Amino acid sequence: MSQERLDALYQALQKQGVQGFLVPRCDEYQNEYVPPCDERLAWLTGFDGSAGLAAVAHQCTALFVDGRYTLQAQQQIGDQAIVQKNLSANEIVRWLCTTLTAGDTLGYDPRLHTERGLAPLRQPLQDQGIQLRPLDQNPIDAIWTDRPAAPSGPARPHPLAFSGEESADKRARIASQLAERQQDALWLANPEVCAWLFNIRGSDIPHLPVALSMGLLYRDGSATLYLAREAVSDALRQHLGNDVELVHDKRALFHAAEHQHVQRVWADPLLSNCWSLQQFRERDMQVFLEPDPITSAKACKNPVELEGSRAAHIRDGAALCEFLAALPNAVQDDDFGELEAVQLLRRKREQREGFTDDSFDSISGYRGNGAIVHYRVTPESSQTMRAEGIYLIDSGGQYPDGTTDVTRTLALGAFPPSAREHFTRVLKGHIAIASLRFPKGTFGEQIDAFARKSLWDAGLDYAHGTGHGVGSFLSVHEGPQRIGKASSQVALEPGMILSNEPGFYLTGEYGIRIENLVFIKDSSRYPGFLEFEELTLAPIDQQLIDPTLLTAEEIQWLNDYHHKVRETLEPLVSESTRDWLVAATAPIRAQ
Amino acid sequence: MSQERLDALYQALQKQGVQGFLVPRCDEYQNEYVPPCDERLAWLTGFDGSAGLAAVAHQCTALFVDGRYTLQAQQQIGDQAIVQKNLSANEIVRWLCTTLTAGDTLGYDPRLHTERGLAPLRQPLQDQGIQLRPLDQNPIDAIWTDRPAAPSGPARPHPLAFSGEESADKRARIASQLAERQQDALWLANPEVCAWLFNIRGSDIPHLPVALSMGLLYRDGSATLYLAREAVSDALRQHLGNDVELVHDKRALFHAAEHQHVQRVWADPLLSNCWSLQQFRERDMQVFLEPDPITSAKACKNPVELEGSRAAHIRDGAALCEFLAALPNAVQDDDFGELEAVQLLRRKREQREGFTDDSFDSISGYRGNGAIVHYRVTPESSQTMRAEGIYLIDSGGQYPDGTTDVTRTLALGAFPPSAREHFTRVLKGHIAIASLRFPKGTFGEQIDAFARKSLWDAGLDYAHGTGHGVGSFLSVHEGPQRIGKASSQVALEPGMILSNEPGFYLTGEYGIRIENLVFIKDSSRYPGFLEFEELTLAPIDQQLIDPTLLTAEEIQWLNDYHHKVRETLEPLVSESTRDWLVAATAPIRAQ
Repeated sequence: MSQERLDALYQALQKQGVQGFLVPRCDEYQNEYVPPCDERLAWLTGFDGSAGLAAVAHQCTALFVDGRYTLQAQQQIGDQAIVQKNLSANEIVRWLCTTLTAGDTLGYDPRLHTERGLAPLRQPLQDQGIQLRPLDQNPIDAIWTDRPAAPSGPARPHPLAFSGEESADKRARIASQLAERQQDALWLANPEVCAWLFNIRGSDIPHLPVALSMGLLYRDGSATLYLAREAVSDALRQHLGNDVELVHDKRALFHAAEHQHVQRVWADPLLSNCWSLQQFRERDMQVFLEPDPITSAKACKNPVELEGSRAAHIRDGAALCEFLAALPNAVQDDDFGELEAVQLLRRKREQREGFTDDSFDSISGYRGNGAIVHYRVTPESSQTMRAEGIYLIDSGGQYPDGTTDVTRTLALGAFPPSAREHFTRVLKGHIAIASLRFPKGTFGEQIDAFARKSLWDAGLDYAHGTGHGVGSFLSVHEGPQRIGKASSQVALEPGMILSNEPGFYLTGEYGIRIENLVFIKDSSRYPGFLEFEELTLAPIDQQLIDPTLLTAEEIQWLNDYHHKVRETLEPLVSESTRDWLVAATAPIRAQ
Repeated sequence: MSQERLDALYQALQKQGVQGFLVPRCDEYQNEYVPPCDERLAWLTGFDGSAGLAAVAHQCTALFVDGRYTLQAQQQIGDQAIVQKNLSANEIVRWLCTTLTAGDTLGYDPRLHTERGLAPLRQPLQDQGIQLRPLDQNPIDAIWTDRPAAPSGPARPHPLAFSGEESADKRARIASQLAERQQDALWLANPEVCAWLFNIRGSDIPHLPVALSMGLLYRDGSATLYLAREAVSDALRQHLGNDVELVHDKRALFHAAEHQHVQRVWADPLLSNCWSLQQFRERDMQVFLEPDPITSAKACKNPVELEGSRAAHIRDGAALCEFLAALPNAVQDDDFGELEAVQLLRRKREQREGFTDDSFDSISGYRGNGAIVHYRVTPESSQTMRAEGIYLIDSGGQYPDGTTDVTRTLALGAFPPSAREHFTRVLKGHIAIASLRFPKGTFGEQIDAFARKSLWDAGLDYAHGTGHGVGSFLSVHEGPQRIGKASSQVALEPGMILSNEPGFYLTGEYGIRIENLVFIKDSSRYPGFLEFEELTLAPIDQQLIDPTLLTAEEIQWLNDYHHKVRETLEPLVSESTRDWLVAATAPIRAQ
């Protein structure tokens, strides 16, 4: 990047009469991944990590990134006049309050922020006499001359064979909650919510199979849906039916609300941008800020979605086995590294029915790189892999019947001796979660420590969560459920899909993580209790296991799991992979 | 009770010009136990449980109690015109809003409520046009002609040999936090806070060795302390020193604050009553509502307090052993029941040095009564005990060097066969907590499930927390730390004393609970990790253990614990108890 862009922005701000501006890594839908037209932060600063914020004040720019991106940001911003800071509300407030002065105005694009997100800034800025002002026009868009157009790929019906519930039934179900809470409409702030409610999918966002969309659901189950004109085919129109009015301009959503005499709108405080809420309020509609009921409905998969997820995981497991079986040979090649491994795995997945995309950027970490928890391999960082050391591969696929996410840690040959104990302790944590029975009403934070217990015994731990929710041909990171140390206050419920991914990381040496997706089901034997069932099917590397550290029950779990993996995948893999699979899933004996 | 008291109250309210009134089970210090002069709820309704609220509106009275008191309240209110309801903010609001009408005024005694406690009522009442009004004079006090005087027993210095830190040092330590938070004074809302800060104890409250007191700590470490005139001796005055001004009228505290030019006061929102906060605000002082820093300081015991607790637990354990050893003989007596057991145990404790009081009302539950979690034996409820069935005894003592709390579950003879599995699962949970190692920063809610895991495996659970904090010759229920399902967001820290008390209850059959007190210490081997160390010393009934359900590590824990119990207590018990102790602590073998 050049200083020119910063200078152009300073000028643009002067023209708009503001002394500062915020540039989040965000789009107006609060997506985790954003389309190229919304990569304003990367365009301005060069930093292209998945989280961050630039703040501009007078002729200064600060980039706020979290711990995992400190090094990457330094490299990417290079020698530009940008100071780098830690991404925290306190740091942002402190920098703004010392760089701006009383009487200054800080602009922001109200489409790219939530009220919740801006809340920590309001009082401190006001106390300093600094005004926060929403800008109608994003000043970056004015100077970013070759900014890509917003994506407007086709929106496709998501068939009943995959969704398991007609959109009209979903709409009626959610609409009844509107009635209960005495709201006239639900603001559908985000493409994932629309994708679930209307049973549509698209391809506008990397790794997330959605079409950019927003909408309104009314109390009678009818709805207004915004989609780009180019995204809509006759087939889609027919799929949506007469109760869904289509509009191609977001402002038309608010006119529709007026037309429907909406007085009270339910909007999710974490998904709804400031601009949308402002539109309602300008029309004298009352906004009820509560979590979107679709978030919880979407989290609990129906039997058809669970069956789809099972099927997708079988194909994905077969693809992963082909990759794992090919690795020993592949690493004989001097040109084979972390990047080539990602490409090889992608080719194996592409050979499986329905694969549309990776569900996120694969983490392919050889030796020390595996210890960088959020490592993303680049051509510059890619390490050549050899027949030795430990390799961690965390990847997933999007299939119309399900979304996958799996991590395996492998010994490619000789490895540091400590890895066997560490791997086995991580495995014990993995099994503790996988085999847990727990009462209804339990929160993820209440069971997280089972995944860590064996590491804690040895004075060890890992600095990430144990499990995140996963969508059904939707986002690989989906709320509201999670398993982690942080308080979620969300009960785990039947039908929820979660990852189970304890790990251990020895800086500079190796990273270990064992991740399966599981879903929650009622205990058949104990009423009022819930259990997990495995979705992911792939061998866990037994070279890294110390069986003397496992209990008889843990060995039984491992052998049962491997038996299921072998029985399920054997018919689906190539002949050479089959031999590997049989060896990799051989039962082990209690010591 | 008679209807007369209710009628007298209705008249008194009319005189004060209010249509309703709230009668909490509370004193102005928010104590868990209250002195007789504050038993207004019991005086008015007959209900003497430890939690509840009566609401009076026009000629109607409702009593709100929680699930554990439903039956007791029914019996105690008898045939008076009182409706009984569930104790929840929603229920209270609903009843008040339907019983009072627009224009009515609901009075309350501002000394007996916190702002936090009243908060849920404010908006709903206001929406109905009902006014909330603090009353200068509690209308019950006007009609309760034989109301006991407020206790004013002597306040005694708590020697350095037990407190381990001079009051002046404690005051300097807390005062530095006032400076950090830019507050001029800390409001000492409650006798426990004063007892810790000034190293004083008393005997004004059942089970809680404190003198009724309130005060103010200033930034320079000096303080103003309210104590009844009769409570103060010359020795106490000398103990407090020149930096502590004594006053004998609570209003003088606020004059003192003016005199000290206090502008900003730090007050705990859960401990401070409305009246006190109002006093500050009327004097144009700003109130900063944040948790009292003394609560966290008090929770972390210093080495002298821990040593004291160890010593108190040894004497208490010896007393408990005398009781346990005497039980088999005692139950041969036809007149021996749950009540006599409590009296016998009390006599055994009274024989030990320093015993001042039970630390709470003992729970003595034979067979089905043991399954009532908050059972308190009365002459009416007391069951005769025989040489059969299961008996649960939960009790504790106050000693100047420490506060104890212990539960043991015993087989008095033949018992239902299911109890052995249930007891062993509870024991496994107890051992899981006792032997846990966990990283600093861990909250109680993150480890609670270890206590439940073995029960969960069998589709079972218990409906109470696993552990509460315990004071040092102070309250047996002390915050902020706890181990339970509910979110505490409080990190467990070295020096904290906690109970470890998983249980299982089979309605009508038996109750099982195994409770030891433990304290938290740094792991000697693993920096950054914490461990528990046992304080309680008493055998766990091995007749109730199924060793085939225990792992080798669990058996090792049990044998090590019993070895320590025997070695420590053997020299301190009578000869006959010694034989019992040796048998009760005999090691068991892995099966």
